[in-house]
Amino acid sequence: MFEIKHRDAHGRIGIFKIKNKKLETPYIFPVINPRSVSLDNSASSSANRQVIKPADIKDMGFPGVITNSYIIYNSLKDEAVSKGVHELIGFDGVVMTDSGSYQLYKYGNVNILPEEILRFQDQIGSDIGVILDIPTPPDAGRKRAESDLKETIKRGKESLEINTDMLLAGTVQGSTYPDLREKCAREMGKLGFDVYPIGGVVPLMEDYRFSTLSKIIISCKKYLPQGRPVHLFGCGHPIFFSFAVALGCDLFDSAAYFLYAKDDRYITPQGTLKLDNIYEFPCTCRVCLGYTPKEVAASGRSEKTRLLSLHNLHATMQEIKLIKQSIYEGSLFELVESRARCHPALLDALKVMLDNHFRLDPATKRSAFFYSGPESLKRPEVRRHLERLKNIEFRAKTLVVLPEAARPYSRTYGISSSKDYHICVGSPVFGIIPLDIEEVYPLNRYESPENLDMEQIAFIETQVKEYSNGFEKVFVHEKLAAEIELPGVE
Amino acid sequence: MFEIKHRDAHGRIGIFKIKNKKLETPYIFPVINPRSVSLDNSASSSANRQVIKPADIKDMGFPGVITNSYIIYNSLKDEAVSKGVHELIGFDGVVMTDSGSYQLYKYGNVNILPEEILRFQDQIGSDIGVILDIPTPPDAGRKRAESDLKETIKRGKESLEINTDMLLAGTVQGSTYPDLREKCAREMGKLGFDVYPIGGVVPLMEDYRFSTLSKIIISCKKYLPQGRPVHLFGCGHPIFFSFAVALGCDLFDSAAYFLYAKDDRYITPQGTLKLDNIYEFPCTCRVCLGYTPKEVAASGRSEKTRLLSLHNLHATMQEIKLIKQSIYEGSLFELVESRARCHPALLDALKVMLDNHFRLDPATKRSAFFYSGPESLKRPEVRRHLERLKNIEFRAKTLVVLPEAARPYSRTYGISSSKDYHICVGSPVFGIIPLDIEEVYPLNRYESPENLDMEQIAFIETQVKEYSNGFEKVFVHEKLAAEIELPGVE
Repeated sequence: MFEIKHRDAHGRIGIFKIKNKKLETPYIFPVINPRSVSLDNSASSSANRQVIKPADIKDMGFPGVITNSYIIYNSLKDEAVSKGVHELIGFDGVVMTDSGSYQLYKYGNVNILPEEILRFQDQIGSDIGVILDIPTPPDAGRKRAESDLKETIKRGKESLEINTDMLLAGTVQGSTYPDLREKCAREMGKLGFDVYPIGGVVPLMEDYRFSTLSKIIISCKKYLPQGRPVHLFGCGHPIFFSFAVALGCDLFDSAAYFLYAKDDRYITPQGTLKLDNIYEFPCTCRVCLGYTPKEVAASGRSEKTRLLSLHNLHATMQEIKLIKQSIYEGSLFELVESRARCHPALLDALKVMLDNHFRLDPATKRSAFFYSGPESLKRPEVRRHLERLKNIEFRAKTLVVLPEAARPYSRTYGISSSKDYHICVGSPVFGIIPLDIEEVYPLNRYESPENLDMEQIAFIETQVKEYSNGFEKVFVHEKLAAEIELPGVE
Repeated sequence: MFEIKHRDAHGRIGIFKIKNKKLETPYIFPVINPRSVSLDNSASSSANRQVIKPADIKDMGFPGVITNSYIIYNSLKDEAVSKGVHELIGFDGVVMTDSGSYQLYKYGNVNILPEEILRFQDQIGSDIGVILDIPTPPDAGRKRAESDLKETIKRGKESLEINTDMLLAGTVQGSTYPDLREKCAREMGKLGFDVYPIGGVVPLMEDYRFSTLSKIIISCKKYLPQGRPVHLFGCGHPIFFSFAVALGCDLFDSAAYFLYAKDDRYITPQGTLKLDNIYEFPCTCRVCLGYTPKEVAASGRSEKTRLLSLHNLHATMQEIKLIKQSIYEGSLFELVESRARCHPALLDALKVMLDNHFRLDPATKRSAFFYSGPESLKRPEVRRHLERLKNIEFRAKTLVVLPEAARPYSRTYGISSSKDYHICVGSPVFGIIPLDIEEVYPLNRYESPENLDMEQIAFIETQVKEYSNGFEKVFVHEKLAAEIELPGVE
């Protein structure tokens, strides 16, 4: 049902089979407002009109969308039951339906039972339904978070007892409590849902609390089954996609493309621009090549929203494609480390992310390892190397540490380890590289700046010192010793 | 003739007037091979055929191109003299012509005199001609670099004595010797050319020697007149554009769009991908939305080159537009610091770049200052602040240093400096911020990660210590003191 084709970090390119349709992940579902695409125009206020037809969204390259079954239930029930949701919104691809838990979150209650909305989603032919979970906002009181959670898990169990034709998504809640997120993920994970959304995180994204959001994803992922796609509910801005994917999220949904457009905001993979602050559109999509910012601004309320929505969807899709490309070539961390420079809150999130051990990160990749700043020293490639060093066996009593040189080092230096000398290179990325394993990825394929930062200097120093234990004599080449200050080492 | 509209770092958006035409800078001239667009097809080998018509390049949004007058002189002289270069290549915008110095560099000699090729450029109606300078490769012997330079300057003087209708570009040479680059820039700068190309740098770009390249640009810019555009000759890959612009380059030229395409290489602002290693095209241009990588690969030699060239031109233009946007909003350093993460050699170049003092960097900008790593502490905004601190006057004998809080600090803390107490905040980006000037940009608008790196901790420590001189008593808030280790300070 979910076949993983390529991996990098905890990100994966996968084929997600839904009945007789399929989606390739990572994927983002554009949000469709059902009221505004229905033929019954009276149901639609002009401000919320769906400015791009779902069929056009499909033609743009989106084979799946998400819409809201609770809104349909309340305002278009009969039409939906007779036509089915696909015909109702005019989209013949994958249609996922949300359950009304967002409305529950926003207004405090919904006038429907969990079982009722689930059966309704099935009745209108949804491809992927979502349980009516209880969303708990970030920083909620512990008591509330616990009781909401209990109810969510209970509803999860009950939902799976209902026979439906659709795939079922069981949302993980738990507010900002790591242990509650873990607990929920463990319990829901055991129940066997087809998709696992992570819910209740929209306010974190709105407030740029990317560190907290990263911690939540890490807690959830620890216990969710590897073979099921994880959906980061309500994450629609591409600035965080690469982080979320690297942490193991597969699915996203975006109302942002439209909500931002309505507010004259232009989405880029690096952030957001206000239309009246744009000098030239820095994009190659047909809207950006066909219009100037002034022309878009002057095109009238609904046309302006339509044009910006189109661009925003293009920018959103572009980032997903770039992420796929990065997974494919094994450079997802490089992408994340670059995106971390789009906002200092993302740089904090990067630090949080790299405290995670990434046990599933592939041991070899198509691309070279690039050092991009102090955070790179925490990457799984470096951690794995440090683990491996602990198991290196040597009989020599003398350690020789040489500075980096052209690779392979053993050829450049014309030496190798012997029963008397254990020869290593001091590396500003991997600390110590014994010549015996210098051909192992990524030791044979990494790039570091020549001009080191303080963390790198401290890192070589610590690694050389630690590795020196167990040797009777240690020689550190003077060029290297001058760089790293090694008191007590010859 | 060159009107500067917006500035950031040493980059500028300017209107460059050329006879009755104009270009907005930063700008990149696509390179047109004159042989392959001529009607005389026998002159064109199919491998070098101009795959995109110059008129189509103009329609894509490029109002100017560059072509090679020396090639025209050798193979299309009569046709060019009778038609003029614009009609010859089929381009009615700005046509700049190179002089043959690239051929001189590549083959060691050219069979034409400097005056002859200059008159020829004028005769065929070039809008911007280039002198036949002597290009010296990087790391050439000092003697050779000096004598080449002498000849270039001599030719520069002679060229300006010739009466022509075109603007004239006087190239700065000097190999990798900073003093020779400075000397050449000073001498050529005095002569009054309309454009100043920086020449002899292509091998540096090919070898990712971005630090050396940055040093050369810094040396040249120090003495070139501010009111004239500077052209980085042969820089056609967008990965370095933001660096070059931030250092003061205004013009570029690209044969890369075509040369890379011929070699199945796909340009992105972050680097280069080989066509057979592309999973999905991470771009929104019409080629990338209209074809899959497999379809492009199977489209036949010349169609494949055409499609990749089109994309490469789009990607190149996109980066120029993003740079303009960044200059406009004052976030060019943020863009450079993000691009520095595309390759460790660029991170080294960033360090070199920030050793430059950026005296012309604007004091206020539309956007907030983002900290992105240890290098950010060298930004001109920080340097300026440290200079300003030296001139802060205070009568108080006690210094109080508080940790950061919600801004404005004086409101959050409910205090201000008095005759007894000089109140400051310790900042991980600006070191010390006296409350009296906390509203000055960028002190009032910067963002730092919460989790500090070693350089930031060392920086606050040094700044607090230095600023403490001259006070009788110093109180550092315990929360801050714990972070920065302040021995000897109360």
